[in-house]
Amino acid sequence: MDKNMDLKALFLGPKSENKDIFEQNLKMLFEDHSQWRKNYHPEDDTIIKPNDRSSENFIATRNRMEQVLTELSSKLRAGSVPWHSPRFQGHMNSETLVPAILGYFAATLYNGNNVAYESSPATSEMEEEVGADFCKLMSYKAGESWGHICADGSIANLEGMWYARNLASLPLAVKEIAPELVEGKTEWELLNMSVDQILDLADKIPEKLDELKAKSARAGADKISKVGKWLVPQTKHYSWLKAADILGIGLDNVIAVEVGDNYRMSMDALRKTIDELTAKQIPVLGVVGVVGSTEEGAVDDLHKILEVKAEYAAKGINFYFHVDAAYGGYARAIFLDEEYNFIPQEELHAKYLEYGVFQNAETQWPSTDTYEAFKAMSQADTITIDPHKMGYIPYSAGGIVIRDKRMRDYISYFATYVFEQGMDIPALLGAFILEGSKAGATAASVWTAHRALPLNITGYGKLMGASVEGSYNLYTRFRDHGRYVIGDKVVILHPLVRPDFNMVDFVFNYEGNTDLAVMNDLNHQFYEEASYVRNGLYSNDFITSHTDFAVEDYGHSPLNFVLSCGPDKEQWLKEQKVTILRACVLSPYLNNKEVFAEYMGKIDAAITKKLENIILK
Amino acid sequence: MDKNMDLKALFLGPKSENKDIFEQNLKMLFEDHSQWRKNYHPEDDTIIKPNDRSSENFIATRNRMEQVLTELSSKLRAGSVPWHSPRFQGHMNSETLVPAILGYFAATLYNGNNVAYESSPATSEMEEEVGADFCKLMSYKAGESWGHICADGSIANLEGMWYARNLASLPLAVKEIAPELVEGKTEWELLNMSVDQILDLADKIPEKLDELKAKSARAGADKISKVGKWLVPQTKHYSWLKAADILGIGLDNVIAVEVGDNYRMSMDALRKTIDELTAKQIPVLGVVGVVGSTEEGAVDDLHKILEVKAEYAAKGINFYFHVDAAYGGYARAIFLDEEYNFIPQEELHAKYLEYGVFQNAETQWPSTDTYEAFKAMSQADTITIDPHKMGYIPYSAGGIVIRDKRMRDYISYFATYVFEQGMDIPALLGAFILEGSKAGATAASVWTAHRALPLNITGYGKLMGASVEGSYNLYTRFRDHGRYVIGDKVVILHPLVRPDFNMVDFVFNYEGNTDLAVMNDLNHQFYEEASYVRNGLYSNDFITSHTDFAVEDYGHSPLNFVLSCGPDKEQWLKEQKVTILRACVLSPYLNNKEVFAEYMGKIDAAITKKLENIILK
Repeated sequence: MDKNMDLKALFLGPKSENKDIFEQNLKMLFEDHSQWRKNYHPEDDTIIKPNDRSSENFIATRNRMEQVLTELSSKLRAGSVPWHSPRFQGHMNSETLVPAILGYFAATLYNGNNVAYESSPATSEMEEEVGADFCKLMSYKAGESWGHICADGSIANLEGMWYARNLASLPLAVKEIAPELVEGKTEWELLNMSVDQILDLADKIPEKLDELKAKSARAGADKISKVGKWLVPQTKHYSWLKAADILGIGLDNVIAVEVGDNYRMSMDALRKTIDELTAKQIPVLGVVGVVGSTEEGAVDDLHKILEVKAEYAAKGINFYFHVDAAYGGYARAIFLDEEYNFIPQEELHAKYLEYGVFQNAETQWPSTDTYEAFKAMSQADTITIDPHKMGYIPYSAGGIVIRDKRMRDYISYFATYVFEQGMDIPALLGAFILEGSKAGATAASVWTAHRALPLNITGYGKLMGASVEGSYNLYTRFRDHGRYVIGDKVVILHPLVRPDFNMVDFVFNYEGNTDLAVMNDLNHQFYEEASYVRNGLYSNDFITSHTDFAVEDYGHSPLNFVLSCGPDKEQWLKEQKVTILRACVLSPYLNNKEVFAEYMGKIDAAITKKLENIILK
Repeated sequence: MDKNMDLKALFLGPKSENKDIFEQNLKMLFEDHSQWRKNYHPEDDTIIKPNDRSSENFIATRNRMEQVLTELSSKLRAGSVPWHSPRFQGHMNSETLVPAILGYFAATLYNGNNVAYESSPATSEMEEEVGADFCKLMSYKAGESWGHICADGSIANLEGMWYARNLASLPLAVKEIAPELVEGKTEWELLNMSVDQILDLADKIPEKLDELKAKSARAGADKISKVGKWLVPQTKHYSWLKAADILGIGLDNVIAVEVGDNYRMSMDALRKTIDELTAKQIPVLGVVGVVGSTEEGAVDDLHKILEVKAEYAAKGINFYFHVDAAYGGYARAIFLDEEYNFIPQEELHAKYLEYGVFQNAETQWPSTDTYEAFKAMSQADTITIDPHKMGYIPYSAGGIVIRDKRMRDYISYFATYVFEQGMDIPALLGAFILEGSKAGATAASVWTAHRALPLNITGYGKLMGASVEGSYNLYTRFRDHGRYVIGDKVVILHPLVRPDFNMVDFVFNYEGNTDLAVMNDLNHQFYEEASYVRNGLYSNDFITSHTDFAVEDYGHSPLNFVLSCGPDKEQWLKEQKVTILRACVLSPYLNNKEVFAEYMGKIDAAITKKLENIILK
């Protein structure tokens, strides 16, 4: 294996090219299950008899079910997004991995519930292994860290903030039940301890764990009101607002820190925010760095956030550090060698060509900042990572990793846990996470994919490379060849930024047009042409997605881009938003120059046709 | 169809009797998908070529994937619970419905994300229809109510409490932004308004919706500290504690209301609790009634809670009413006729025999209280219902229904929503619920099952009947024939209570033994014999689950039962808990007297062998 994994063997294919492989394994997995049922106490007779099966009622019920399944298939085909084709360049969607689809299917037949080990020994063990995979991916220390699967990134973010909130309140609880341990410390000092300091402090009174928890933020709103502010970049996902609402921290305590032209959190703005809060003696509960913003694919400079963190720690001001890598988390695999060591930057390019991560020597990625940001992830307290995004796993599969598994105790509902079969698996996982019942099948799906594609340069790294290289191809093509002559008008395609990751945002504008409303309208109309709105999905020949960057959310970060497209500042201030088209390049095939060229021909023709529909109609 | 649905056509069968039906439809659904890919722009060429497929790397990658899938299948067979056999009578698990499994599989191939309509038109519409199904099942008013699928019951309960918390804070917010609307009202009065009053009040200032929300509990901890206490029965699931922690309401504000001998909330205790709080001017945020407690299957007397609610409303004291029917929600289908009318109690028995809901005229179910409790569900503000429990849907599929869809606005993240294609489907469902990304496949799975089995007496009602009747058979058998002679000892099986629903709890005790520690030890050892702990799963011949009823959680509600088994009160006070064995009878086959007799023979032999292992070893 090693260097030679072929991604093409891991997908069904845009034209179902690997149908035989899929079908053969599907059949095997079902046959195995079927015989497993039969051979559990082979001496037990059947319950459904041939006479039952030939009865009128049985046949009518079966017919009805088959009619429903036929209807289901029809609805799915009519109303689903054809993301399997490179003609789709929109939402974070594409083909998913065959091992993941089949892993899910197989495990559904056994239907384990990973809420409790007892209900799902096999898939609970898989979830524990997947958690360990995540830790390895983040270069967290084995044994000290922990991770699990959850429903999605919103839940993982919520769980991360829950950890932060409950931990931040512990020093206040210690002051109540063991004041001698924090003698002489002011409330400000107690609310400014680092995560490690807090955990070490709590470790001093293991016999008072339950009491400590009972006096923490979980007791009620009083302590929550003291924990301070939660800082997110302006590119924030709305799940952060939701999380703050739900956790009682409150929207009033979420601060959106300005981003720069590159849509990454500005370090000046971060410092300024912390200084202002400190001056008012308001603690910073936590700072979120985003690895792959949902709208731009921007990767925050986590290494710089860590510098800021160290600066303030030296002054006695600490905060929790969560990384929202729901989108970009898996991309860390592209930086890990076969022994899971982070590859030195100067060796990357050669390795990428050696391992076939990139096919073309001219592909330029990553920037030094992006490289350093991914490296810095290992210092985060918690990280959100979604297998259903860059893990190419079917929905829904989210995940969270925690750097120090002692943290689990402060959100958990049973103080004791059982060690089963030599593995450190909670007997009741539901008591250690936000959710309760959860599909063992999700764990099986992710586990199977991780076993087929190691989370390093030989496996997932290669898949990430295909996607990143495809997006690089699309970005350079859009940048260098984005000119469409439509009747007597010329339309220019402006890409937003050179992508930090695999998302290409862009807008169309008429050559010479300086009216932002006209430009926004053109792009909105283009979106309608390139989505289900006007042309349906199955008959559409190019599909993309869209978003708005509005002053309300983004401040004036988009201004320079708007200026580069034609409209001036006055226009920006008047319209207050710019409508953006958004292509998340997940297709694993667009790294190949020939495939790319072939599809760009089709996509260019489709773009021209859509612009004609808008302009010449 | 109508009266004649045959449940046997809807399951794969304990011996894979319906393997052919499953396989044929599986193949059809996959073939349809495969051709759908191929026929999207048939003019586009393949990307994975025959040359690719015969390359060494492709073959090596494929081999590796197939090796992983083989390993997966082995792990699943070795470490999964054989709930397909009636020899399994433990956790809430059994065969799941073929239409649900196939529906999930088919939709996974299309991989819609129901977070946004745009990513999943087909499955978003199915989720909307499933929500409407839930509303119909609860006799909520069509058009006014709403429901959706969520990850599980813990999330649904959390969402229910979130609704309650944010709504309760609205009158305080109104006082700040439109004080004229609540002129003369005290804070106590504002915190004691009914849900309808609150919604009507907020409706008066539609232009100030955003401002209102910004001043509600979502702003932060201050308002949350005022909303009051959350009352749950002592049989509470731990998800309620977790939810109170997460939502900032706090564990200090959850009150466990005593239950009676029947494990239903005591109305005297409820009144007493409200009176005590009222005397201290502490509001009651909400009361939870449980339909099917996790450990006993107890159904709280919701109709009596409604009486209490009305009594206090007359005194100006109102509270939110959430029904946790995660477990029992689907059982409401057994009370609905073909037109979804709630069947008069006096007609039930005849209807059950006419429609084949019960096979045996002597089956006695439900009690009048249970009948009235199910009827009263239509008055709840929100209801948790888990398809992955009594819906016979694979994990994970939870759900929640809200009586008045205006409530959505107060937990939502975008004030506006778009009406698509004539359906009232939020364009961004993720902004109206707790989760974000979510599998369209779950919606497809539930939708397919609901279409195959209507949520009334002809469909799901019949499936519920099979389960309830099976549990009735098991209960009466245990009650009347639970005597095992093991060497020179006699062991008696004591069922806990006549089940409100389909769960049979029981304990073993030595005849004449009055030592509770000895009895608990016997039952714990029995559990170890009848689970994965000592005998593994696949080779085990009877599998059940267990739980502890401890004074800390249950108070002295279990005392009378303990007394009936032999030990006296002193023993109870000394041990502080009783270990219970727990059989959730989900098998759809044990309503048949012959099947039941055959398997009870096997189960009795297995019980005897296990008791011998314990006693004679």
